[in-house]
Amino acid sequence: MRLDVFFGAHGLTSADVQGRVVVVIDVLRASTTIAVALANGARTVIPFESAEEAITRSKAFERGDYKLAGERRNLMIPGFDLGNSPREYTREVVDGKTILFTTTNGTGALIAAQPAREVLVGAFVNFTVVSAMVRAAARATSDIAILAAGSERHFSLEDAVCAGRFVRAIRRGLADVALNDGAQASLQLEKRYGNDLARLFEDSSHGRTLAEAGFADDLAVCGALDAHPVVPVYQDRHLTKLGPDRER
Amino acid sequence: MRLDVFFGAHGLTSADVQGRVVVVIDVLRASTTIAVALANGARTVIPFESAEEAITRSKAFERGDYKLAGERRNLMIPGFDLGNSPREYTREVVDGKTILFTTTNGTGALIAAQPAREVLVGAFVNFTVVSAMVRAAARATSDIAILAAGSERHFSLEDAVCAGRFVRAIRRGLADVALNDGAQASLQLEKRYGNDLARLFEDSSHGRTLAEAGFADDLAVCGALDAHPVVPVYQDRHLTKLGPDRER
Repeated sequence: MRLDVFFGAHGLTSADVQGRVVVVIDVLRASTTIAVALANGARTVIPFESAEEAITRSKAFERGDYKLAGERRNLMIPGFDLGNSPREYTREVVDGKTILFTTTNGTGALIAAQPAREVLVGAFVNFTVVSAMVRAAARATSDIAILAAGSERHFSLEDAVCAGRFVRAIRRGLADVALNDGAQASLQLEKRYGNDLARLFEDSSHGRTLAEAGFADDLAVCGALDAHPVVPVYQDRHLTKLGPDRER
Repeated sequence: MRLDVFFGAHGLTSADVQGRVVVVIDVLRASTTIAVALANGARTVIPFESAEEAITRSKAFERGDYKLAGERRNLMIPGFDLGNSPREYTREVVDGKTILFTTTNGTGALIAAQPAREVLVGAFVNFTVVSAMVRAAARATSDIAILAAGSERHFSLEDAVCAGRFVRAIRRGLADVALNDGAQASLQLEKRYGNDLARLFEDSSHGRTLAEAGFADDLAVCGALDAHPVVPVYQDRHLTKLGPDRER
C-alpha cells in the first residue's frame, strides 16, 4: 500500500490521487469548519472557488434554506451570512441548511482531489473517526493520499502535523506501507507536537495571524481533538456526513 | 529579517523572491552537479527548460567549446554529451567549457527564482561557503528565501534537510529572524539527520530511485560536505562561480 502526503494542491496531478482514498486537511480553518457544520446538522456543504459562483448558486434555493459562507484573508465576505470561524456554525444557525462555502485554500484542495475514488475531509476535531475510516479503506486494497492544503499556496505546519498524525494512525500495525518523502517528513514533524496543539498553533504562522486578527478562540476549537466525530465525504461536489443519516 | 523556505517552485510567485537573496537547492542532483562543474573549471552553466532549447543554443558555439548536458528521468538525453551525474563533470571534461544544461526539477526552480536580487545554488558539497555568503548578504539588510526544488513537482526530503541546514547556519547568532512554516519544518527535519547524509539518502525516495538505477556512487558525491566549495551565482540566465576569476 502507498501512503503519500502532498503539501498543497499546486503540484498535484490526477495521477497522484486517481483511484485512491484522499484526505484533505486544512486545519485552520476550512476542514474544521466543515466538520463542525456537518456535526451540527448542516444538510450539506458545497464548496465553490469564488464568491460569485456561490452567490449564483444560491439563487436556486429558498432564502431560508441556505447560508452563504466563507472568507477571504480570514474575514467574512461582504454580504455573506457566515465567515470561516467554526464557532459561527452552531446548531441553531446551520441545522438543516445548505452551506454554500468558499475559502482561500481548502476549496482548491477539494477540487484538486476530485479524481480520487473517495475524498474525505480531515482535521484534529474528527481525527479518530476519519483515520479509522481510512484504515478500513486501506485494508480493502486502496492506496491513500493525504493532501495538506497549506496556506496561500505555501506549506503550513499545522496541516503537515495533522497529516503526520493521520499517517501514524493509518499505518499502525500494517505491513508494507510505502511512504513518500512528504509522509516521512510529516511523521517527523508530528513527533514534536503530539497532543500539544496549542504550541503547534503558536509555531504556525497562520495560527499567529488568526490570533492577531482576533480569532484566538478559534484555535481552541480547531485543536479540540475528536470534539466533532463526523466523516465528511466529498462527492458530486457536495460534502455530506457519512453515516446512517447521510443525505443530499 | 525574513528567512523563508519554500518547497517546490510551483506555488512560488514573484513576491516570494523579489528583492531577496535566494538559494536554490536540488541536492539530487542538479545543485551538486552545477557546483562540481564550476569547481572543475566550467566557464559557465546555462540552464534550459527543454532539451530543444539547449540544442538550439548550442549552434551559437564552436563544437569544442560546449557540452550538451542534462537528464530526463535520471538518464542522459540521447545525443547529449553528459548526463546529470556529478561524477561525469571532471576537470578533463568540463574545464573552460560552456555547459548547456537541462534537468527535470532544478532548472525550473532557477527560472522561478529569477526575480530575486541574487540567486545562488546550494547543496551539501558547497554548504559552508554558500551559507557564509548568504549570512553576509543578510547582514546587509536582505531577506532570504531558500527554494527546496523537490522532485517531479513534489516535496523531497533531501532538499528540505539541506534547506534546514542552511537555515540553522544562516540564523546562528542573529536576532529577530522570522521563519515561515517551511523554515521551521526544515529545521526540525534537519535535526534528525545531522551529518548522517547516507541515512538521509536511504530515507529519500529519490535517493533510493537513483541507487536502484545504478547511481549509488553519485549519492556519496552529493553527500560529501564542503567537497566543492564554490558559490554558483545565477545572473542573466548564466551560472558562474563567484570569486576573483568570475567570468562569463
